[in-house]
Amino acid sequence: MTLTHAYAAQSATTPLAPFSFERRAPLQRDVAIDILHCGVCHSDLHTARSEWGPAKYPCVPGHEIVGRVRAIGNGVSKFKVGDIVGVGCMVDSCQHCASCAEGLEQYCENGFTGTYDSPEQISRENTLGGYSDHIVVHEKFVLRISHAESDLAAVAPLLCAGITTYSPLRQWQVGPGQKVGIVGLGGLGHMGVKLAAAMGAQVVLFTTSPGKTADALRLGAKEVVVSKDPAQMAAHANSFDFILNTVAASHDLDPFIALLKRDGTMTLVGAPATPHKSPNVFGLILKRRRLAGSLIGGIAETQEMLDFCAQHGIVSDIEVIAMEQINEAYERMLRSDVKYRFVVDMSTLGQAVAA
Amino acid sequence: MTLTHAYAAQSATTPLAPFSFERRAPLQRDVAIDILHCGVCHSDLHTARSEWGPAKYPCVPGHEIVGRVRAIGNGVSKFKVGDIVGVGCMVDSCQHCASCAEGLEQYCENGFTGTYDSPEQISRENTLGGYSDHIVVHEKFVLRISHAESDLAAVAPLLCAGITTYSPLRQWQVGPGQKVGIVGLGGLGHMGVKLAAAMGAQVVLFTTSPGKTADALRLGAKEVVVSKDPAQMAAHANSFDFILNTVAASHDLDPFIALLKRDGTMTLVGAPATPHKSPNVFGLILKRRRLAGSLIGGIAETQEMLDFCAQHGIVSDIEVIAMEQINEAYERMLRSDVKYRFVVDMSTLGQAVAA
Repeated sequence: MTLTHAYAAQSATTPLAPFSFERRAPLQRDVAIDILHCGVCHSDLHTARSEWGPAKYPCVPGHEIVGRVRAIGNGVSKFKVGDIVGVGCMVDSCQHCASCAEGLEQYCENGFTGTYDSPEQISRENTLGGYSDHIVVHEKFVLRISHAESDLAAVAPLLCAGITTYSPLRQWQVGPGQKVGIVGLGGLGHMGVKLAAAMGAQVVLFTTSPGKTADALRLGAKEVVVSKDPAQMAAHANSFDFILNTVAASHDLDPFIALLKRDGTMTLVGAPATPHKSPNVFGLILKRRRLAGSLIGGIAETQEMLDFCAQHGIVSDIEVIAMEQINEAYERMLRSDVKYRFVVDMSTLGQAVAA
Repeated sequence: MTLTHAYAAQSATTPLAPFSFERRAPLQRDVAIDILHCGVCHSDLHTARSEWGPAKYPCVPGHEIVGRVRAIGNGVSKFKVGDIVGVGCMVDSCQHCASCAEGLEQYCENGFTGTYDSPEQISRENTLGGYSDHIVVHEKFVLRISHAESDLAAVAPLLCAGITTYSPLRQWQVGPGQKVGIVGLGGLGHMGVKLAAAMGAQVVLFTTSPGKTADALRLGAKEVVVSKDPAQMAAHANSFDFILNTVAASHDLDPFIALLKRDGTMTLVGAPATPHKSPNVFGLILKRRRLAGSLIGGIAETQEMLDFCAQHGIVSDIEVIAMEQINEAYERMLRSDVKYRFVVDMSTLGQAVAA
């Protein structure tokens, strides 16, 4: 067992605060990782506050983890001590269903084990996540990271925001010659812009904030459309091959569906707390369009995404914070006051716990 | 010009009644057709009553047309006098856009010309449909019919109800080894069951009416699920490759989306007058499912469908009516009191007009 320092919520209404617990010693195929950086995802906040159903407390969020291998089990072949590795949203799955067999562990028919607030496969113990200095994970769910050491903080958000946007872009075969829309310029959206541009698509960023234009162009968008302006929207009618909608807030999908070509797809990767307005069925029927969803990505695809990002020099745009700033960061995240992802420097955890 | 007898609505609130007008003499590539049978589609009623926006009056509905070629233009090569032919929902399209080039005239970027209540491509004159004894159509939009003469009345509904269900089943590659749901057993649904079964799929019919079970099994369904029964629905969770939803009335889509496998699609072919409840986004995200739409089918695919039906002995289940019964038939259609499509015997039109 390894004493692990962390930050945890003790209830839906209490701020996150220092907390310690024991991680298991590495089993045969486990990798024990000292966490260096952990990104801050909206899901962390939703879970810590029981906004997606009741969480188990203490709740240690965090699933955008980059760290260094401290120890390995006897049967580990993919990693060695000292390797820089990542852990994303999943730490296990049933590994015998059809989806797992296809490398789509995120759709595990028996339920994957999330990195936090999720039952382990056998023990059903609740998982505790990356707002901690140490984690132990089966090697199958550990990712190789080949980015430069200086980039590692900015790599952390790739483990959730990166794969969540990469997977649908790949699934719908985004590439050169295609016009692709990204809706929303937040943690997910800014990765969507970078990735779709790197895949060779002509990227248009949709935002309600005209102030984001310069940033979106810098990130790789060819054009920025203020989605509240019907004239700007109408100019793009029936012209998109694919739209990736990263906005979790409830909004009207119809103006975006109307921008898809025949047989075009809009994939939603955010789920609203209150329902979107019901999409107009004629918008789907008259151009044989599709509305789809997508959930993170499988482990093999996450590795592919990390390698793609390393090759293309892609990381997230981040603001590094100390662990003790997490509650303030949540409030700023709710105000969209972050460009574009907070990442906790986990070396600050010792101080926080000591304080 | 040819004097044509018909039934027309003169306003959104008046019953259909006898009406006469002139059809053009066949132009070079036109086929002049004596109409033998015309199916009665829900769209006829919606249009005649201006329920889908204001119709132009007089309005002559009818787009499930079977007839015999009376005359042809000099340039017609596909048909000769005496041939049995069909006309469906379209009589023209721009014929130069990308969708027309792909044989997907129903998605014509410049707007196809509907068989009724639609502007002609050049003159912009309003089209008048199949509740008439004669029609003149460009040969590109005329279909060959190879069913037996005795089946012709029951072939008429294939021109809309048949192709509307055939096209999405083909697009989503329904075939042997697949489990396919058909929602609703009406004019469209009963064709969906027959076609999906003929394509080799395991067909499950969803209905709110337990009384339709025997009929659905006779038509080709392997199983009937009463969609109001949560236990029956739950038994099929995550098991469908594809669901074709033919119900135009507003309803909750989520219980059906929950029955799709990962990567499964539900295609809507009916559009509700009032919106469906907004689909739960998690239902799409957690299994990467898709909600899609589909509109009739292209001319080439309509021919393929007619040939497929002739080969498999498929026609609609119909109730033949006289033209003067049309207003009563509309009322019965609103009560779903028809198994499963009314078809007007157009030989009754002469009497109706004379009466």
